[in-house]
Amino acid sequence: MYAGERLAEFVATSQWDSVPRQVRHEGKRSLLNFLGCALGVARTPPIEMALRVLLALSGDSRVTVLGRSERLDPLGAAFINAISGNLLDYDDTHLRTVIHPSAPVAPPALALAEQRGLSGAAMLHAFILGAEVECRIGNAVSPGHYARGWHITSTCGVFGAAAAAAKLLGLDAMGTWHALGIAASQSAGIIENLPSAAKNVSVGNAARNGLFAALLAEQGYTAAPTAIEGPLGWARAMGDEPAVAEITECLGERWELLSNTYKPYPCGIVMHSVIDACLELREQVAPEQIARIVISGEQLLLDRGDRPVINERDARVSIHHCAAVAFLFGAAGLEEFSETAVHDPGVAALRAKTEARVDAASPRGAATADVFTHDGRHLRTTVLHAKGSKERPLSDQEIEVKVRQQAAVAGVDQMIAAAWRIDTLADIGPLLCASC
Amino acid sequence: MYAGERLAEFVATSQWDSVPRQVRHEGKRSLLNFLGCALGVARTPPIEMALRVLLALSGDSRVTVLGRSERLDPLGAAFINAISGNLLDYDDTHLRTVIHPSAPVAPPALALAEQRGLSGAAMLHAFILGAEVECRIGNAVSPGHYARGWHITSTCGVFGAAAAAAKLLGLDAMGTWHALGIAASQSAGIIENLPSAAKNVSVGNAARNGLFAALLAEQGYTAAPTAIEGPLGWARAMGDEPAVAEITECLGERWELLSNTYKPYPCGIVMHSVIDACLELREQVAPEQIARIVISGEQLLLDRGDRPVINERDARVSIHHCAAVAFLFGAAGLEEFSETAVHDPGVAALRAKTEARVDAASPRGAATADVFTHDGRHLRTTVLHAKGSKERPLSDQEIEVKVRQQAAVAGVDQMIAAAWRIDTLADIGPLLCASC
Repeated sequence: MYAGERLAEFVATSQWDSVPRQVRHEGKRSLLNFLGCALGVARTPPIEMALRVLLALSGDSRVTVLGRSERLDPLGAAFINAISGNLLDYDDTHLRTVIHPSAPVAPPALALAEQRGLSGAAMLHAFILGAEVECRIGNAVSPGHYARGWHITSTCGVFGAAAAAAKLLGLDAMGTWHALGIAASQSAGIIENLPSAAKNVSVGNAARNGLFAALLAEQGYTAAPTAIEGPLGWARAMGDEPAVAEITECLGERWELLSNTYKPYPCGIVMHSVIDACLELREQVAPEQIARIVISGEQLLLDRGDRPVINERDARVSIHHCAAVAFLFGAAGLEEFSETAVHDPGVAALRAKTEARVDAASPRGAATADVFTHDGRHLRTTVLHAKGSKERPLSDQEIEVKVRQQAAVAGVDQMIAAAWRIDTLADIGPLLCASC
Repeated sequence: MYAGERLAEFVATSQWDSVPRQVRHEGKRSLLNFLGCALGVARTPPIEMALRVLLALSGDSRVTVLGRSERLDPLGAAFINAISGNLLDYDDTHLRTVIHPSAPVAPPALALAEQRGLSGAAMLHAFILGAEVECRIGNAVSPGHYARGWHITSTCGVFGAAAAAAKLLGLDAMGTWHALGIAASQSAGIIENLPSAAKNVSVGNAARNGLFAALLAEQGYTAAPTAIEGPLGWARAMGDEPAVAEITECLGERWELLSNTYKPYPCGIVMHSVIDACLELREQVAPEQIARIVISGEQLLLDRGDRPVINERDARVSIHHCAAVAFLFGAAGLEEFSETAVHDPGVAALRAKTEARVDAASPRGAATADVFTHDGRHLRTTVLHAKGSKERPLSDQEIEVKVRQQAAVAGVDQMIAAAWRIDTLADIGPLLCASC
């Protein structure tokens, strides 16, 4: 059986009752975390610009653009909402693949459910299945895929979006299989463009084109049976020899969403243990006492985080900036990564006192902070697992706090309440009440 | 200077006066050939199905869907018109890359020119520049790109579409550069899906997303300077070490459109010399006298064309079918590749009498036909360059004949006349008069 065929059969025949309780709950956590991220940036320039393009073209506007009063057709809304969800990379992370699972998958599920008046349970079910498909295809091509230059959230997200949309459209196994194959012909997005707005376009397209694939399949569009793993198919064209078994192994038994994680800090995930270590030491030292900070960790930490800081984007992947704001403000939220914080003289001074060092013995994900004070003290702590990691997951309560920080808008309480009981709602309206 | 930067500068600063006369004329030939292909299939199921999806979502409908009375927004129209142009692979071919240059590039140029009331010369100029960008980027990654599984018309077409749209939007060099970089994040389409409708989706997206890239760049969206050739950029992610110099060498001096070719027969281009050889021998032998036909050529011919024929799609890449219809009907047009012809007992019988053989000494593009008759005669001919090849191009008159065969609709005469004088028209309305 082809991988796409098996995946499609799984999606088409999956019953809501067969989805384990903890998977459903993780689905709600993912969804809520996504909504907070999307609402938080809904009025920023990248969203405004993309929205202007689509509004100028789209007349008939039916579904919600998160955090906005404008409405778009489902394809356009899926595009914008995916961009919003992932804009700051503050959304969820499937650590094995570094996929942000929700941004490409939630928007088409929300758009279709809203447009067609489907139940909250149907939407959540489709979302969970889509995330499963996306992450499993990601597993099959990781880690080579990302390393080669593919923005895996975009390239694998389109499959998840197609699967979620196919489920909500009620496509049978054959139709879902075609939808996945059509998605393979639309998979795109490169790492080289990550520091630019072009990144948003591939993430938005993943959501939009996955939905488009399912709509085309619904009308009778077809794809090759071997679109994903064939000799001239998606995985090999992308440069990978796929581990095809990863796609279908223990389907319905092992759930990828249970490996999903949520960031407490709006910055590169490998910086999180740096922040935790500095927050811990902050209790023992005031910022003005600090003479020198040394952050050490594995090579990967240095590769990602040892760089000059010129703008917000740099700050979010800077060891120095993360250490500085943690010591100065005792926090590392949206404000601490704003342009204001980047150019704050106090932050700049503390960044300049920070040094990053490779510690070859440091385990993956860990960070050690050494602080030397003007009066000769030396403080040290090591964080093995950052807050938000799979080992130290955010609690439901902490996710709520994060959402409220981002989405300080009317209706956020009702939205949060709706997310936790989405599987009991006849339609998803209450989930969208914070957008108007 | 980065390749994208140089290309963008070329596009943004190109003056219509500096485009050589024969390049302009080739642009008209390409455009006319494209319009005939698009009109010919405008009412077939793949177009109907895709149109249903977009019409259900798109309200505000402004620009022409070729060969139809429905109208769509420019993105939707670009998508559908590109599918139509390339549906049967009967459109133009840039032989070095096997790109079909017009299908992804003409639709966004037509859509923008129609929507904004731009002149025919502006549209033709943008189209020519777009084709240049698309084929040059294709040159830089050929032949490995196609061989690895990338549908090069789709993957490189998106750059051409972006360039053409950027020119018509009047973007400056920087904006055009960003548009090309945004296109890199949308480049997609795999060979594995060629025998299915999913192929159409990547071709349509190339046109749609190239236009989208330019519209986003117009609003201020950006891309990485090295999106095309950077270490984690488009070309290397796609699996190729790009020959970057190919992109910019002799820009404005050598024009890729002068290497464009037009198919006289709606089938695989390597089959064309087979058809020509058989048509030539037909003058000396009646079909009922034929005992055996042997077609010989290089390995590539056999790889592409030695296969069982079950449906139209097979027929278009079958040596046996091409030989059979050439001898039986003295023609190899749309009718001779229809389902009716595929299942015609006379055609099937002659296919069964046909044998394909490798001739290692046969040059690229050549074919030899040997016919053995019941009465013991042996006829042979070799065609080195097929009709429609660069060495034996279709005349303007022959392109007109081809267009009329495909587009037997009211207004085709006016459309053909408008195509030849498009550079003198204040708007492109007359070019679209066959669509209503």
